[in-house]
Amino acid sequence: LSRRGERPGAEALAALPVAVDAMGGDKAPGEIVEGARRAAADDGIPVVLVGPPDQVGDTCGLDLVPCTEVIAMDEDPAGGVRRKKDSSLVRVAELVRDGKASAMVSAGNTGATMAAALLRMGRLPGVIRPCIATPLPRLGRTPAVLVDAGANAECTPAMLVQFAQMGAAYVAARFGTVSPTVGLLSIGEESTKGTPLVKETHALLSGSAGPDTKFEFEFVGNLEGRDLLPSPADVIVTDGFTGNVALKALEGSLRFLFDAMLEVFGTNDETKAAADVLLPYLLPMAAEFEPENTGGAMLLGTDGVCVISHGSSNAVSMVNAVRVAYECATRGLVDHVAAAVRPPQEG
Amino acid sequence: LSRRGERPGAEALAALPVAVDAMGGDKAPGEIVEGARRAAADDGIPVVLVGPPDQVGDTCGLDLVPCTEVIAMDEDPAGGVRRKKDSSLVRVAELVRDGKASAMVSAGNTGATMAAALLRMGRLPGVIRPCIATPLPRLGRTPAVLVDAGANAECTPAMLVQFAQMGAAYVAARFGTVSPTVGLLSIGEESTKGTPLVKETHALLSGSAGPDTKFEFEFVGNLEGRDLLPSPADVIVTDGFTGNVALKALEGSLRFLFDAMLEVFGTNDETKAAADVLLPYLLPMAAEFEPENTGGAMLLGTDGVCVISHGSSNAVSMVNAVRVAYECATRGLVDHVAAAVRPPQEG
Repeated sequence: LSRRGERPGAEALAALPVAVDAMGGDKAPGEIVEGARRAAADDGIPVVLVGPPDQVGDTCGLDLVPCTEVIAMDEDPAGGVRRKKDSSLVRVAELVRDGKASAMVSAGNTGATMAAALLRMGRLPGVIRPCIATPLPRLGRTPAVLVDAGANAECTPAMLVQFAQMGAAYVAARFGTVSPTVGLLSIGEESTKGTPLVKETHALLSGSAGPDTKFEFEFVGNLEGRDLLPSPADVIVTDGFTGNVALKALEGSLRFLFDAMLEVFGTNDETKAAADVLLPYLLPMAAEFEPENTGGAMLLGTDGVCVISHGSSNAVSMVNAVRVAYECATRGLVDHVAAAVRPPQEG
Repeated sequence: LSRRGERPGAEALAALPVAVDAMGGDKAPGEIVEGARRAAADDGIPVVLVGPPDQVGDTCGLDLVPCTEVIAMDEDPAGGVRRKKDSSLVRVAELVRDGKASAMVSAGNTGATMAAALLRMGRLPGVIRPCIATPLPRLGRTPAVLVDAGANAECTPAMLVQFAQMGAAYVAARFGTVSPTVGLLSIGEESTKGTPLVKETHALLSGSAGPDTKFEFEFVGNLEGRDLLPSPADVIVTDGFTGNVALKALEGSLRFLFDAMLEVFGTNDETKAAADVLLPYLLPMAAEFEPENTGGAMLLGTDGVCVISHGSSNAVSMVNAVRVAYECATRGLVDHVAAAVRPPQEG
C-alpha cells in the first residue's frame, strides 16, 4: 500500500495541492473549508478538499475530491481506517501516497489520522515508529518542539533517539534552525536520573554508549518539566505518554490562569478599565500560546507530510495548518527526516 | 533500625515536638530557624531544632538537639545518609522513630530526606514503596494531591494502587475530605488508553481485575494532563517519573506566565497604573499557587510523619510546613495510612 515510485522533488511538490480533510474536526466542514479557502486565496497555496459532496456543501470554489465516508471523532482509529476505505481521512493520505498532493491536513480523529498516514503513506525506511512533534512557544523566538507528543505510549531507547533525529530535522526544515539543540525530558539534570528508558537514551544521545554515533544536532543533556516553557533546547525528546501528559498539563495550566485572570479583570468597573489598558499588551502574548496559531502538530517518520490539527480547529487554525504543511512539503521535510534516520552505513 | 515499640497515640503526639532540620534548604539556617520560631510562638506548636550548634547559631530560644554533620543539598542521598550518621537529617528521623518527636520537617536534599525517613523510621507494614504527595491548588477549594510526585521513577500497578490508598488517607486526614475521589493520570479517558502500567492499574482500581478489592475512596477513572489544574479528583495517581515531570511543567508554566505578565505590567506609566488597580485582586490568586503556602510535600508510607519542603523554603514556608506536620501527626495520619494499605485479610 505504500508509495508508488519516487518521492516528488521540491519543484513538483510546490505545484501539488495540499489535501485537506474537509470533514475533520469539531467545526467541520464550515471552518475547515473557510480556512482552506483563505490559505488558497491569501497565500496562493494550491489546496484540494476531500469529503462527501453532500456533506461538505459549498466548497468556496476549491476543488473537491469526492468520497463517500467519514471517520467520526470518537471512532476506533484502527477499525475506522480499516473499514472506511472511502473515507475523507483515508483518501487525503492516498492523494499524498499517489503523488497527487504535497501534504495532508486533518483536524479529525487524531488516532485515525496517524493510522491513515501510517498505513497509506507508509513509514520511511529505517523508522521504527512515527512520532508527533508539537510546538511549544518561546516568546519572541521560534517555538521549541516536543517529540513524541502522544503517538507512542510505549517507547524504546532506539525510538527516542530517532525522535531526536526527526525532531531536529523538523526544526531545521520548518524554522531554519542551524545545528539544533536537543534535550531529554527527565526528573533531574544528572545522567543517572530517571527511568531505565531515559538513562539508556541519555547514553545513546551523549555518545557514551559507543563512539560511532554521529548526530546532526547538539545533545544538551536532561531537561526537567520546568524547562518546557520556555525550552532552552530546540527539541525536547520524551516518550509519547510523558509527552502527552506534559503537553496537556501546560495547556491546562495556561488556560486555567488565563481564565482566572479574565475573571479578575471583570470584577468591577475599575478593574475593567485597567484591563482595557493592559489587554493590548497581553493579547499578543496570549496569541503565542494559542494552539490555533501554531499550525498544529506534525507527524514525523511517514513517507509524506501529515499535519494533525487540534480537534477544535477554526478557520485561522486551518490557514496556519495548510501553510505549515505546504512550507514543510516544499522544503523537503520528508527527505530531511529520511536522511536523519538513515543508518550510518547507508549514508 | 525501625520503630522501637508502639506508635504514640494522638494525645502523646500532640505533646511531642516537631523536629526541624535546621540545616536543610538553600536559606538554612536563618529562614528555617525563623520559621520554626514563628510556628512555636504564633501557633503554640512544640518545635525542636536539630543541627550543629556552631552552624545553627542563634536558636531564637528554641531547643536544639546537637549533631555534628550536615548532608549537603547536592550530596548523593543514599551515600550521605549511610556515611553521615550524626547529620541533622538522620537525627530528625531518629527523633521520630524513638518517640521523641511527632514529625520531621526538612527543606534539605530531597533524596536524602526520603532515604533518612525510610531507613530510620522504616516502612509501614505492607507498604511496597513510600511515595511523595504534593498539593495542587484548586482556587477556593482544598487542594488536590498528586501521588507519586517523584519518589519512584519506576512503578508497578500494585504500587500505584497503594499510592491511591495512601493519598486518599492523606486528604482525609489533612483536609477532612469524606470519601475522597481518586483519578488515574493517563492520555485519554478510556480505560484502554495509556501504558500497560496505567491499564493494569485502571483494572485494579476499578475492580474489574477482581471482586474482592474494597477501597475507602471512589475511583473516577482516567484523568489527563489538562485535568491537573484544577483537578476534578481529590487524589491524582501516577508514577513518580510522570508525576515529577507534570508537577514541574505546571510550576514552570505558571512562573513563565506570571513573569511575562509582570513584564507587561512594567511597560509604561499607564500599564503600571493599571497594574496597581489589578494587583490587589491578582496577588491572592497568585498566592494559592506559591509552593511556600502549601506546606510542602508529604512522604507517605513511612512509620512517621515526614514533610519535605522546597529547597527554596523561606520562613513562611517553614511555618506552613511545621503546621502541616503537626496537624497531620496529631490527626493520626500514620495510623490512617497504615490502615489504608493493610491487606483485607488482616483487617
